[in-house]
Amino acid sequence: MKKSVFFSFALLMSVTAFGQQALFGGQDITSPEIKPDNTVTFRLFAPQAVKVVITGDFLPAQKVKTPMGEMDAPGTAELTKNAQGVWEFTTPQSLPSELYSYSFIVDGVKVLDPNNVYMIRDVASVTSVFIIPGGRADLYKVNEVPHGTLARRWYDSPTLKMTRRITVYTPPGYEAGTAKYPVLYLLHGAGGDEEAWVSLGRATQILDNLIAQGKAKPMIVVMPNGNAVQKAAPGESERGMYKPSFMGETRMDGAYEMAFPDIIKFVESNYRTLATKSNRAICGLSMGGFHSLHISKEYPDMFDYVGLFSAAILPRNDVKSPIYDNMEGKLKIQFSKNPKLYWIAIGSADFLYKNNVDFRKILDDNKYPYKYYETGEGHIWKNWRIYLSEFLQMLFK
Amino acid sequence: MKKSVFFSFALLMSVTAFGQQALFGGQDITSPEIKPDNTVTFRLFAPQAVKVVITGDFLPAQKVKTPMGEMDAPGTAELTKNAQGVWEFTTPQSLPSELYSYSFIVDGVKVLDPNNVYMIRDVASVTSVFIIPGGRADLYKVNEVPHGTLARRWYDSPTLKMTRRITVYTPPGYEAGTAKYPVLYLLHGAGGDEEAWVSLGRATQILDNLIAQGKAKPMIVVMPNGNAVQKAAPGESERGMYKPSFMGETRMDGAYEMAFPDIIKFVESNYRTLATKSNRAICGLSMGGFHSLHISKEYPDMFDYVGLFSAAILPRNDVKSPIYDNMEGKLKIQFSKNPKLYWIAIGSADFLYKNNVDFRKILDDNKYPYKYYETGEGHIWKNWRIYLSEFLQMLFK
Repeated sequence: MKKSVFFSFALLMSVTAFGQQALFGGQDITSPEIKPDNTVTFRLFAPQAVKVVITGDFLPAQKVKTPMGEMDAPGTAELTKNAQGVWEFTTPQSLPSELYSYSFIVDGVKVLDPNNVYMIRDVASVTSVFIIPGGRADLYKVNEVPHGTLARRWYDSPTLKMTRRITVYTPPGYEAGTAKYPVLYLLHGAGGDEEAWVSLGRATQILDNLIAQGKAKPMIVVMPNGNAVQKAAPGESERGMYKPSFMGETRMDGAYEMAFPDIIKFVESNYRTLATKSNRAICGLSMGGFHSLHISKEYPDMFDYVGLFSAAILPRNDVKSPIYDNMEGKLKIQFSKNPKLYWIAIGSADFLYKNNVDFRKILDDNKYPYKYYETGEGHIWKNWRIYLSEFLQMLFK
Repeated sequence: MKKSVFFSFALLMSVTAFGQQALFGGQDITSPEIKPDNTVTFRLFAPQAVKVVITGDFLPAQKVKTPMGEMDAPGTAELTKNAQGVWEFTTPQSLPSELYSYSFIVDGVKVLDPNNVYMIRDVASVTSVFIIPGGRADLYKVNEVPHGTLARRWYDSPTLKMTRRITVYTPPGYEAGTAKYPVLYLLHGAGGDEEAWVSLGRATQILDNLIAQGKAKPMIVVMPNGNAVQKAAPGESERGMYKPSFMGETRMDGAYEMAFPDIIKFVESNYRTLATKSNRAICGLSMGGFHSLHISKEYPDMFDYVGLFSAAILPRNDVKSPIYDNMEGKLKIQFSKNPKLYWIAIGSADFLYKNNVDFRKILDDNKYPYKYYETGEGHIWKNWRIYLSEFLQMLFK
């Protein structure tokens, strides 16, 4: 084979690299740059822009007026332009270990950081993300530990008359072995779907890391889609690449809770599970906390571990579903069966804080045992990653 | 439980929806809007911007100068601003059925479409995407058909001394049944990884659809990471969220081909496979075509089906690896064993076209049987999706 007739390897590289350069408009800068002292510099090449602002959850929150009064929104900071047309902003302080989200705003237009390929969709918006290691966020990183398997599957829900998408984590060693495992059902919030805990929730990394550290038992974790009208996350069903609307798919009408046994049946007939109450847990954030509350009391022999994370404990008196009837009577039955852990977690600034106070009063008045975990801040993923990390360490022990 | 003490369901919705609105800067517009006649309108709310341009692969390509002479780059078109500050562009013609990629350029800055949550990373860049149905791209859509399972797993490679990430598709019915399946090994190109065929390649959808139509046999499809120095795609290993560089991770030094039996061993001991030559296929794009060529000749009893898609058939005479020694002798052995299908596909405008002409001449001169499939255009995902769709229909029959 004659060498001369071939393009060279180096040429292949330069041709394809050229395509990339063209797409990037020639920029080759680092953003975000995490310095050794955990200050972070953000950069954007935008010589023609008039004003560039960064907004992110690491900046001091700003108060904004809403129909419900003043609320916190992510803070903003202005970038400054250098002679080469690169805009830059460095955080004035070191950032604590955390997974952070941000966007640029270029002349009024929200822009993802073109030098950062790591971005996460949260409902209908996408933001750039980065991790500051060295503390709690080490649980959110991929570390050099044994890794579980993450599968996107489809299960049959005869109750909802649908085939539905579901995300399943199996722990390291599951496939090679014959052991049976306990199962956690991990539920997302309003506007979320079967991708939410994997993306912003970093559930895969938290599980791999806590299992490797011996702090969580190896377990199967099942992340269903909690919108009973949906087969799958946006873009993952035959509805195609439609524009997600925040509440368009959320009902909280009892249908999901009614159909939940379909999920348990699927999991227990498709995986090697320990199919007993003491080996089943359920938890969820916001609407998923609401679902966990109702599912666990509706099927009082099913779950020994229940976690309500910033739970949307809202009355559904206006909804005709047997799920929401006789809540106090069902709680009485549930607690008469002595669940091993009923765990309530919320941030002190959560707009659902008072709802949770009121719900805990009911539990207190009835002397139903539960554990309570309070953090700062509000209804945000930072808190939900913390709650998952804490809850996992209490399960199946 | 007193109703009065709770926030209402509607309030929960408005609070969380408010957060979304804040993030979007108040815009609530549709983009892209695919009209019934398959023209498409793109919109961007940017009242302060001076110039907004769209660049995408549906626009007429433009010639750009490169070190190798003139090459095609995605075309551009200017948007026009209305009185409300919304910039708009409508394609002058209906677009043929296809998966398209695009970005906006706002005052010189590349911007993903903030109203489109569907975006795909290709190496180090991310673009917004949409699908025009009604033709070939119906294979790339999620349709109402039985769906296979897609798993991200980790396998052990003793040869590379690494645990490495791998993507595995199992066909509908795999988990519930006991049947054994043939296996396709599907390889990515330079700069890609174990996510490439799933994202821009739409492999999951193509497989689900062709299997449902009875045009492809149910099969297991294995998508490894072809960069032997990498454990996993960027962001998916303990290296963290580093900035991918286009060729930084690509070697083409023989190490991957040498270690390929580790992958086959993993697959055949972890899945119900038909572990015979007539039930194994290998194919890949660009560097993955190069890998498929070398792996299939290196292990001549392993694969009865070989597909080279826009293969980077480049001499590696400068690389010291036994893999690249005695290529013609190894091809002779491979073809003496009568592979059922040796398939070469390339676009007429591909910069590797002549390399493939020269390689086919070697096959012709030796009367080695192969099939040849030529399309228009060049070294692009549009062609690779077509080649995969065609190749799948010829396997295991």
